[in-house]
Amino acid sequence: MQKISNVKEVPQDLRNIIIDIIQLRADFELAMVEQFSPWLVNAPTAEDRLFVAKLVSDELNHGWQLLRLLEDFGAINIVNQIQNLRLGIHKLEVSNLPLFNWEDVIVFTFIIDNAGLYQLRILKNCSFEPLSNLASNLIKEEEYHITFSKNELKNYNNKNRVQGALNFWLPRAVEMLYQFKTLNETQLKDLNISELVKNDFIDNFIKTINNEIKELGYSEIDPYKNLYYNIALK
Amino acid sequence: MQKISNVKEVPQDLRNIIIDIIQLRADFELAMVEQFSPWLVNAPTAEDRLFVAKLVSDELNHGWQLLRLLEDFGAINIVNQIQNLRLGIHKLEVSNLPLFNWEDVIVFTFIIDNAGLYQLRILKNCSFEPLSNLASNLIKEEEYHITFSKNELKNYNNKNRVQGALNFWLPRAVEMLYQFKTLNETQLKDLNISELVKNDFIDNFIKTINNEIKELGYSEIDPYKNLYYNIALK
Repeated sequence: MQKISNVKEVPQDLRNIIIDIIQLRADFELAMVEQFSPWLVNAPTAEDRLFVAKLVSDELNHGWQLLRLLEDFGAINIVNQIQNLRLGIHKLEVSNLPLFNWEDVIVFTFIIDNAGLYQLRILKNCSFEPLSNLASNLIKEEEYHITFSKNELKNYNNKNRVQGALNFWLPRAVEMLYQFKTLNETQLKDLNISELVKNDFIDNFIKTINNEIKELGYSEIDPYKNLYYNIALK
Repeated sequence: MQKISNVKEVPQDLRNIIIDIIQLRADFELAMVEQFSPWLVNAPTAEDRLFVAKLVSDELNHGWQLLRLLEDFGAINIVNQIQNLRLGIHKLEVSNLPLFNWEDVIVFTFIIDNAGLYQLRILKNCSFEPLSNLASNLIKEEEYHITFSKNELKNYNNKNRVQGALNFWLPRAVEMLYQFKTLNETQLKDLNISELVKNDFIDNFIKTINNEIKELGYSEIDPYKNLYYNIALK
């Protein structure tokens, strides 16, 4: 696998797909800032608000670094466009949903941020090195968020409301992973990240999360049961 | 001046005034999180949003530390009450105003956060050491915020809109400083922080800020011109 060490070395035919992947991720990160920000004020305790502040600050920093990478490609219009997206016009459907309850905040972190982490672990092997380096850095912070959310879920008072949130968000994580199937698999293979669009990868994510859900004392979920509305299953 | 090194050593007659000062400050810090949070998403650039994230995270952390100090006093009800305050029911009037425009965000930092910094410099000399130590830590972070805001003001495109925000916020900073005059001056003297309620202190704040306003290329402001509505001038 030939490494691409900087933007200038990117072959013309791979340029657009790299830009697409980066902008999908940048929008996902910045949307999380929007989705979580009401909880800086409304999370149950000051400790919980501090977690939200850490998460928001991390995701904003990730978004910022991804936008800088887009600038290296000269994609200034895309940078401006991404900064102006808001709930309802974000690229991933999961980024267009508000977090109404504290259970949504915890479960979104545990499931959706986690699905994003699974994708980062693939992007870490990308032959375009600026992106693989960035993915490595992001992984550490995302792992901390997910650990926090698991501890919250373990000791949560109202298990029934958490189960509702798990039922709601797991299908949406799967939908998010399916949205990447619009990317060209041959080009992904050239970048060493074709796993992103493999059914095995998605199946493995569902299986692992469901095991963790059971270990935390909740019921496992069939994500496809509620997932017939806007996914072209491939 | 006798030092009070921990909560147990606080004389009964000074207990309530210390709790009052801490809760005023904790509410001020947490209100700032509420006032600034929309700008995590809406600040003009990703860099500006990163500044907002830093400020929000700092103020939340300050609020959290102050609430821990209230817990040391056993004031759990007050801790719960402060965490539940929102725009409209905050203790300082300046904390009840939303930040509608980006100019408000910058100028609020430069003027209101700055007025809070002036107060912290007094609290640093408080004979109740847990509060004076905390004030010392807070000062460094507040100074960074204010430096950022000054740099923004220096290079701001639309000077006219900034002047409007300066006209609006300086009287409100003075109002905030006057609100502390409800505290008992004799007890403040016992704590070595009676400067908080001295006219000289407020006059000096106005003079210094007005000099900085002129140096930054804006017109100085008579804060009393718009300040007749809810201050009992002493």
